[in-house]
Amino acid sequence: MRAAVAADYDGWGYNRSAAGARAARADGFDVTEHLPAALRRAAAADALIVVAVPMPAVDHMLSAIATYAPQCALTDVVSVKAPVAAAVRAHGLADRYVGGHPMAGTSESGWAATDAKLFGDAVWAVGVDEGTRADPWTRVVRLALDCGSVVVPVVAAEHDRAVARISHLPHVLAEALALAGAGGGDLALGLAAGSFRDGTRVAGTAPDLVRAICEPNSTALLEVLDETLTVLATARDSLRDATSLADLVEAGHDARRRYESARRWEITDIRAGDRDWLEHLRAAGERGGVITRLD
Amino acid sequence: MRAAVAADYDGWGYNRSAAGARAARADGFDVTEHLPAALRRAAAADALIVVAVPMPAVDHMLSAIATYAPQCALTDVVSVKAPVAAAVRAHGLADRYVGGHPMAGTSESGWAATDAKLFGDAVWAVGVDEGTRADPWTRVVRLALDCGSVVVPVVAAEHDRAVARISHLPHVLAEALALAGAGGGDLALGLAAGSFRDGTRVAGTAPDLVRAICEPNSTALLEVLDETLTVLATARDSLRDATSLADLVEAGHDARRRYESARRWEITDIRAGDRDWLEHLRAAGERGGVITRLD
Repeated sequence: MRAAVAADYDGWGYNRSAAGARAARADGFDVTEHLPAALRRAAAADALIVVAVPMPAVDHMLSAIATYAPQCALTDVVSVKAPVAAAVRAHGLADRYVGGHPMAGTSESGWAATDAKLFGDAVWAVGVDEGTRADPWTRVVRLALDCGSVVVPVVAAEHDRAVARISHLPHVLAEALALAGAGGGDLALGLAAGSFRDGTRVAGTAPDLVRAICEPNSTALLEVLDETLTVLATARDSLRDATSLADLVEAGHDARRRYESARRWEITDIRAGDRDWLEHLRAAGERGGVITRLD
Repeated sequence: MRAAVAADYDGWGYNRSAAGARAARADGFDVTEHLPAALRRAAAADALIVVAVPMPAVDHMLSAIATYAPQCALTDVVSVKAPVAAAVRAHGLADRYVGGHPMAGTSESGWAATDAKLFGDAVWAVGVDEGTRADPWTRVVRLALDCGSVVVPVVAAEHDRAVARISHLPHVLAEALALAGAGGGDLALGLAAGSFRDGTRVAGTAPDLVRAICEPNSTALLEVLDETLTVLATARDSLRDATSLADLVEAGHDARRRYESARRWEITDIRAGDRDWLEHLRAAGERGGVITRLD
């Protein structure tokens, strides 16, 4: 809401926490702790509703939306996408829904951690699943662009497999690394420098939030976690039997270089509502394409 | 050398790379690619020699030092300590040697990556192994302090176990995470944000350097890598069987908080050469104590 209002949107919000709503109001934002009131207002204004709660709270929110504002365009910024889409369908809201996931955040949470510039130069995943309608899709893309992000078009299942690799696994490894460091006591923690600090940063995230991000994506996370256990066990065997980490280190370095040198390219020739636009956007997203503006 | 000279040391250097030596000279530093000349000069000046090469090159350096400057005080900034100490003993140089390891660095290497401020506010591990003599120890500690670091006194074996946890394991996990991300192709790498970027940063380090850092510490690294494989496999089982990461995430978060809240305290009452000074410094280092000045 802070970013949207900074981009000149007429935005208002709901927070279940009275303290959170008060803190936002103290900063001049229009926030209530009364959900029906916020949603009735959204329905009257034909607003775009952005669900920004952890996965365990999504069902409750959708239930209220189905009651008070079922015709509104609807998106979300929940990490995982397929479970949100399933819940949206269960509440009969699929027609107006387009999933979203801005790839930005810190290990902090709460109103005090809000930052209007959080989405600047970020990537914002926006759904192009079958059945997506052009009107709400365009509104969601415009919001992302207005907040300073570029948009990656992606279907829910592919999104969830991708973020298991680049967001959820990093959380799991950061927690394990933090544990390994603390196992070395004050001496090890006192010697820790950049590699440990960076490698454990996201372990500072609130545990409930990490679980709410990772656990709903367990199928995809299990797949890459198993893959990584195999990679690490192979490296362990090589280190034990041949005192060598060559295979892991060379492949890992190549992978990091590929990440560093990846260049986004701009999708310019596909318009919402055109023939096969969803399939074309999905294919472009898979090849590293991003949307940077709407005509 | 850049940091020592910036701290008003009369410093000169050797680099086997003619291009590296030229680049340093172009910046006004006194660097030669002739090792015997640099070492004869060190012997004549009673200099403190700092060996700053990867572990595979240590033996060659020590051999030259034993030939041309065997009486000089000697330290090193190689990551692992017990193998360096063993090599120093093998060359008959143990009497004047004090191991060192500044916990600072980037994923870059070469002269262009030097930075006089690299060691500012860093931790510099300095050896307090049995038999350490007060004179070279004091010179090494003074160099570390003059470069802006605080000093953690630690024996070689404990240092190596600690850095396996907070430096070498981070490298291994970063390589594995980079691989997992690249396994998701352009889509996954394009969606990657802070957690992946930070978690894979050190995978950008030159592969030969990572191997030279980690492989000589294989015993300690194997121990913590096995421990971490168990932690991750347990988390995998819990995610698969109960869709829960609770145990890992809560313990990892506690560990990161312990790291964030660890406070160093100043060792003030132990003087080099005092009765049992090495044992007292070792015990203080284990409890998080650091040396911030010499009287």
